[in-house]
Amino acid sequence: MSNSLFDEVIPRFGTRCAKWDKMEALYNVPADDGIAMWVADMDFRPPATVQAALEKMTAHGIYGYHGDDSAYLAAIQWWMSTRHGWNVEPEWIFTTHGLVNGTGLCVDALTKPGDAVVLMTPVYHAFHRVIKAAGRDITSCELALEDGRYVMDFEAWDAQMTGKETMLVFCSPHNPGGRVWTRDELEGVAAFCKRHDLILVSDEIHHDLVMPGYTHTPMALIEGIEDRLVMMTATTKTFNIAGTHSGNVIIPNEKLRNVFAARMAGLGISPNSFGLEMATAAYTPEGAAWVDELVAYLDGNRKIFDETIASIPGLTSMPLEATYLAWVDFSGTGMTAEEYTSRVQDTAHIAPNHGPSFGKGGEPFLRFNLATPRSLVETACARLKEAFADLQ
Amino acid sequence: MSNSLFDEVIPRFGTRCAKWDKMEALYNVPADDGIAMWVADMDFRPPATVQAALEKMTAHGIYGYHGDDSAYLAAIQWWMSTRHGWNVEPEWIFTTHGLVNGTGLCVDALTKPGDAVVLMTPVYHAFHRVIKAAGRDITSCELALEDGRYVMDFEAWDAQMTGKETMLVFCSPHNPGGRVWTRDELEGVAAFCKRHDLILVSDEIHHDLVMPGYTHTPMALIEGIEDRLVMMTATTKTFNIAGTHSGNVIIPNEKLRNVFAARMAGLGISPNSFGLEMATAAYTPEGAAWVDELVAYLDGNRKIFDETIASIPGLTSMPLEATYLAWVDFSGTGMTAEEYTSRVQDTAHIAPNHGPSFGKGGEPFLRFNLATPRSLVETACARLKEAFADLQ
Repeated sequence: MSNSLFDEVIPRFGTRCAKWDKMEALYNVPADDGIAMWVADMDFRPPATVQAALEKMTAHGIYGYHGDDSAYLAAIQWWMSTRHGWNVEPEWIFTTHGLVNGTGLCVDALTKPGDAVVLMTPVYHAFHRVIKAAGRDITSCELALEDGRYVMDFEAWDAQMTGKETMLVFCSPHNPGGRVWTRDELEGVAAFCKRHDLILVSDEIHHDLVMPGYTHTPMALIEGIEDRLVMMTATTKTFNIAGTHSGNVIIPNEKLRNVFAARMAGLGISPNSFGLEMATAAYTPEGAAWVDELVAYLDGNRKIFDETIASIPGLTSMPLEATYLAWVDFSGTGMTAEEYTSRVQDTAHIAPNHGPSFGKGGEPFLRFNLATPRSLVETACARLKEAFADLQ
Repeated sequence: MSNSLFDEVIPRFGTRCAKWDKMEALYNVPADDGIAMWVADMDFRPPATVQAALEKMTAHGIYGYHGDDSAYLAAIQWWMSTRHGWNVEPEWIFTTHGLVNGTGLCVDALTKPGDAVVLMTPVYHAFHRVIKAAGRDITSCELALEDGRYVMDFEAWDAQMTGKETMLVFCSPHNPGGRVWTRDELEGVAAFCKRHDLILVSDEIHHDLVMPGYTHTPMALIEGIEDRLVMMTATTKTFNIAGTHSGNVIIPNEKLRNVFAARMAGLGISPNSFGLEMATAAYTPEGAAWVDELVAYLDGNRKIFDETIASIPGLTSMPLEATYLAWVDFSGTGMTAEEYTSRVQDTAHIAPNHGPSFGKGGEPFLRFNLATPRSLVETACARLKEAFADLQ
């Protein structure tokens, strides 16, 4: 039995959180028995250093305009350099209201209405939503399956390009497939973007949540891509502070940066103090030690969950190389989506994300969030086994 | 001597606040002796109900995605109805990242590049910045002076319209002039907007900070303007929580609302939990009682400050009907701007805002923020008297 700071079950009902408080209304899963495994936040407290920063603000008690982001920028530099081997200049960094906003700003600033944006699907649902709402088309390049995991199919994708595409929004590590892309694959993405003259927006929000044995390479370290590259990172996923709605759009190229900066100014976007202070506290050695513990814990959850899924005939969980989001293929059951989804929700009382919202290729999948105390993962596993017991 | 919860001098140095921590660098006013009277936030803690909401969040300690804004929306409805006699429907309300962002979004969503936006100058400096950064022109309609306070000059402004103008960004109550516009004046603004086919964006962020004897009328209560009206309100100014970077854009007209909603979605804008929770706690009877106390205190500060200014030959403070921002005309001194500004900053060690940043008509003014403990206002007064003693 593990004995970890992540074991504590902290009830979140009544805190107006999306994940637990909206579960019953959206999934018809009973609040008193349900397990929320949808929204991608964690049921864990952030590291003590982040909590201490917030408590310091709270103790002072005046919440006026923030005016000095030098420590914040230095913390980002330290983290990217120490944890990712990537040297960032402070003037490259823009702080947006999270990376959905970051994506929207990239699309707005760096493409035109009528342009098409490439997505490698299935991929994070909010990308689709933002791009469509901005009046751009989506060119869905479907990831191929090889040995049960997603791989890129540049040949097929080259043939799909219509000339209208001006941007790729890329997800690295990949949500929902959990892939840590190899350096070869990243070089392929860079070459693809150059070949089709695409701006490359690399959403690396999961870059800190990489399972043992895998190494994430920031796209910024791939040679020859810098002049068309936008990097997106955040503390919100790593440290479970999504409520701060803060993210970083990091643009090494001066020309792209100036275009982006003008849109930031025209839209009057600037960050809230809570996000700034908590991020500054997170990107520290204390924060790093906590992340190491967290990843080990998530790795344990992943193993337990995968074992269960592997034991149910017809269910396949994609190998989780990064993120805490298990991507489970139900097509082997021969059931309709309605049937397997009902077994998960109505029988097992688990609320997962539905595959189709991630775009083309996501249809036969459900996504399960494993960032919850182990006891809940174990309960979820037992219930899934039970709900699909007839397949044995 | 007053004995108020606002009397406590709470040092803000080292909290990375703009107002105090950037004063020395920007104004060359020594940190150990200076009085920060520029940035429009207050040196007061918010009401206990707001602090309690934040402490509750902090005690729970998980800061994931917010998911239920019904209490927040109901609180806004309650406040607008109870304090302003204005009935708001929840679906009219958009939550932006403060009202600079709100203004930027209005300009982006409801005007086109090359359009001109009307400002009644002098007016809040960020309006100018955002409109210019969005690639729109500014048509500056200068407020006239009548009995030492600003009045509108529609006849002159009618003659200024070029046909390119599509929006008026209006400030009510007025910053920096402190005017509470009368119903007659508001009707004049509405007629002006209809006459020139302008969208009317009414920034009413100071609507709760109205001095005894004056009554603020929300623009939404003026008949016949609703189909071209955008209202902007916030808890941040009233309750001194600008760090939350939250504001409300409220649009009664469905057609305008749909256009605005599409831009919100395309830019992926959604609020942070701290702003939502603190606003929900602020818009309550406890919050209201605190505001009443606050306004009485600010009124006291205003009287002391105005008395001092009135006693210095050549200085004139505009009658402060609302806001805590005194707008002082130095032209009667016959001094250059360099000379009177140097006396305020280098001699009196006070950091005010400079008039020219507020646009046409702002040139001979300095703006002084009076939302600070009375003892500091008194010290500032004594220093100003001293610095201009030779004029006696």
